[in-house]
Amino acid sequence: MQKITALQHHLKQQQVDAAFITHPDNVFYFTGFRSNPHERLLGVFIPADGESFLICPQMEVPDAKEFFSGQLIGHVDTENAWDKLVSSFTVPVAKLAIEKSHMTVERMEFLESRIQGVTFSGIDDVVTEMRLIKTEEELVHLRKAAELADYAIEVGCSLIAEGKTEMEILSEVETAVKAKGADGMSFSTMVLSGLKTASPHGTPGNRKIQKGDFILFDLGVIVNGYCSDITRTVAFGEPTEEQRTIYQTVKEAEVKAVSLVKAGVFAKDLDKAARDIITSAGYGEYFTHRLGHGLGISVHEFPSIHGENDMALREGMVFTIEPGIYHPEVTGVRIEDDVVVTADGVEVLTKFTKELLVLDV
Amino acid sequence: MQKITALQHHLKQQQVDAAFITHPDNVFYFTGFRSNPHERLLGVFIPADGESFLICPQMEVPDAKEFFSGQLIGHVDTENAWDKLVSSFTVPVAKLAIEKSHMTVERMEFLESRIQGVTFSGIDDVVTEMRLIKTEEELVHLRKAAELADYAIEVGCSLIAEGKTEMEILSEVETAVKAKGADGMSFSTMVLSGLKTASPHGTPGNRKIQKGDFILFDLGVIVNGYCSDITRTVAFGEPTEEQRTIYQTVKEAEVKAVSLVKAGVFAKDLDKAARDIITSAGYGEYFTHRLGHGLGISVHEFPSIHGENDMALREGMVFTIEPGIYHPEVTGVRIEDDVVVTADGVEVLTKFTKELLVLDV
Repeated sequence: MQKITALQHHLKQQQVDAAFITHPDNVFYFTGFRSNPHERLLGVFIPADGESFLICPQMEVPDAKEFFSGQLIGHVDTENAWDKLVSSFTVPVAKLAIEKSHMTVERMEFLESRIQGVTFSGIDDVVTEMRLIKTEEELVHLRKAAELADYAIEVGCSLIAEGKTEMEILSEVETAVKAKGADGMSFSTMVLSGLKTASPHGTPGNRKIQKGDFILFDLGVIVNGYCSDITRTVAFGEPTEEQRTIYQTVKEAEVKAVSLVKAGVFAKDLDKAARDIITSAGYGEYFTHRLGHGLGISVHEFPSIHGENDMALREGMVFTIEPGIYHPEVTGVRIEDDVVVTADGVEVLTKFTKELLVLDV
Repeated sequence: MQKITALQHHLKQQQVDAAFITHPDNVFYFTGFRSNPHERLLGVFIPADGESFLICPQMEVPDAKEFFSGQLIGHVDTENAWDKLVSSFTVPVAKLAIEKSHMTVERMEFLESRIQGVTFSGIDDVVTEMRLIKTEEELVHLRKAAELADYAIEVGCSLIAEGKTEMEILSEVETAVKAKGADGMSFSTMVLSGLKTASPHGTPGNRKIQKGDFILFDLGVIVNGYCSDITRTVAFGEPTEEQRTIYQTVKEAEVKAVSLVKAGVFAKDLDKAARDIITSAGYGEYFTHRLGHGLGISVHEFPSIHGENDMALREGMVFTIEPGIYHPEVTGVRIEDDVVVTADGVEVLTKFTKELLVLDV
C-alpha cells in the first residue's frame, strides 16, 4: 500500500481526482497481483483521497485477494465492465489521470461518454519515475532472475551438439530453468545458429547445428514478477579469423560500456562508448539498435540507453547493456548483461563468462 | 495483397484517406509478417488509393522483406519513428482510420500534433469483420494447430505420475509439442492439479500430483501464425461421486453446445444451452465465465460466445466452446474444443476424447 500512498501524493499535487491504472505491469506494481486480462478489464482505481479498489474478472477475484488487501470488484462477461467501473468510483471524478501510453482511444472515448465533463491527464511519467529506481526488495528478485538466466546459458552451452536443432535446445533450456524455479520466461527464448545469428530478432526453428556455427542465446526468466535478460554467443568448432574479430569487438564494446556505469553518467555516453569501438573496428553499420533498455517488472522499460538520451544515471536504475554486430555474411554476435547503477559504480547481475567459448565439435 | 485491396475498398466507401494498422496480429493479417515490436513502432500504412508501406524497426527489415512485397521503411532507435512515419505518407492525409481498440491515447495525440487538422475514425469493425470469416487457407493452419493441441494433451496424460510437479509436466509437454513442429504456445500453458483446478486462470507451480487429483490441461499451440486452444480435465485415481457428477455435467453441457453450432444459430443460444445444463445440475454459480471466444491469429478474438451476444453464426467462424464448473471444495473441470461453423453444422478441430479418463495410480 506504500506505493499507492506515494501515488496519491502525486495526484494531490497535480490536483487530479483519481488515477485509473490499467497496464498489467503497473497493476502488479501497485497491488502485487499479476494477471494477463487479455481483452477483459483489469485496473486499480486510486483516488487522491479515499479508498482504492481493484477491478478484475470475477473469476480472478479469489487469486487477487491473496495479494491485494483493498476493495475488490469482480465483473462477469455478461455485464459491461466499464459501466461497473464508473459506478464503483469511490469519489466524484472530474479530472482523471490515465496511462496515455497504455489506454486505448476506444477505452478513453468510452469513459468520456460515461463520465460527464471528465478531462484526462497522463500519469505515465509519474509511474515511470516511481518504477525507475528499484528498491532493495526489487533488487533481490532481479538478482535471482539474473542467476537463473546465467544457469540457462550454462545449460544451453552443454546441450550444443552437431545435428541438434535450435528448437530442441531451446525447449530443453526452458525445461531446465523452470524446474529450477523460474516462474516463466521474460520473452520468447531465442536460440539462433549459423548466419541466423545475424538477425537480431530472428526466430528459432528446425535448423540443425553445424560445425563452424556461432550460436546465439537470448533469453530471460521471471522470478517473483521480475525479469532478467541475457545474451551470449558461443562458437561450435574453431571460428574464422573474422568471426573472432567480430566477437572481440563486441566484447570490448560491452565491457567498456559496463565499466562506465555510475550514478551521474549520461545514458547516451554509454551508447557512444560502445558504438565508437564498433565503428572504429569498421562494423558500425552492423550495430543497428540501441545499447540497452531498462529492466524490472517489464522486460523493456525505462531507461532507454541510446545515443540521444541525455538523462543522468541514478542509483537504483537497472538496465541491459547489449551491443551487437550483425554481419549477414560472417556472423552475428551480441553480448548482453543486466546492470544496476550503484552510488560509486555498477553491480553486474548476470555473471556468465564473456570470454569466447569455443565448444568442441 | 488481396487483403489490402479489400481494405482499400472499405476505405473508399468510408471516404477515409488512409488506414494505419498497428496491432501486430493485424499487421500479420495484412502483410504475413509477424513481429512483436515491444514499445517500438510497427505498422502498415494503407491509403485508400496509392501505395501501402510497412514501417518497422530497421533491424527487422530483412525479415519483413521475406513476407511483404510492398515498400518497407525501417527506423532506428535514435530517430523519432512517428515523425518518419508521417513524412513517409504516400498520400495527403486529412482523415485517418486507426484501430481505436489498439492505438493508445499517447500515439493518437502524437499523430494529432504532427498532421495538421487530421481527424480520426475507427477501422476496428472492418478489420474484425474481415478476420471473422476464415478462408480455407487459414483453416488449414487452424486444423494443424488443433492436431498438435490434441497431441499435447496425449503427451500430458502420459506424463502424469504421483509426485511429479505441475511445472515438470508442463515443460515436458511444451518440449514435445515444439519438437513436433509447433512455432510456439498460444498462451502460457496451464497444468493445474487438485483444488487448483478450481481457479480458471490459475498458475502452475511446484505442487506435486497426488492420488485423487483432477488434473486440468489448458493449452494451445501456434502453427504458421494460427492458434489452437484446448482444455481437458482427467482424473488420477478413482474420483469421488461428486467429482464424477461435476465432470459429466460439464461434458454434457459442452457436447450440447457443440451439437447446436450451425450457420444462423445465435451465439447467445450456445451459451444458454450449456449454462442451462450446468444450472439445472445445481452448479450455475460455479460457471463464472462466458462459453467461448473466437480463435485465429489471436488466441482471443471475435466472436465472443456469451449470453448477451445475439449475433448469428456464419460459415467460416472459428471459436472455442469451453464450459467449466469451479467448485472450490470439490474440483474444477473444464472441457474446451475449437470449432468451425459450416453451412450445415460444425467441424470440431480438437479431437481428443471427452470421456472421463481415470488414470491408474
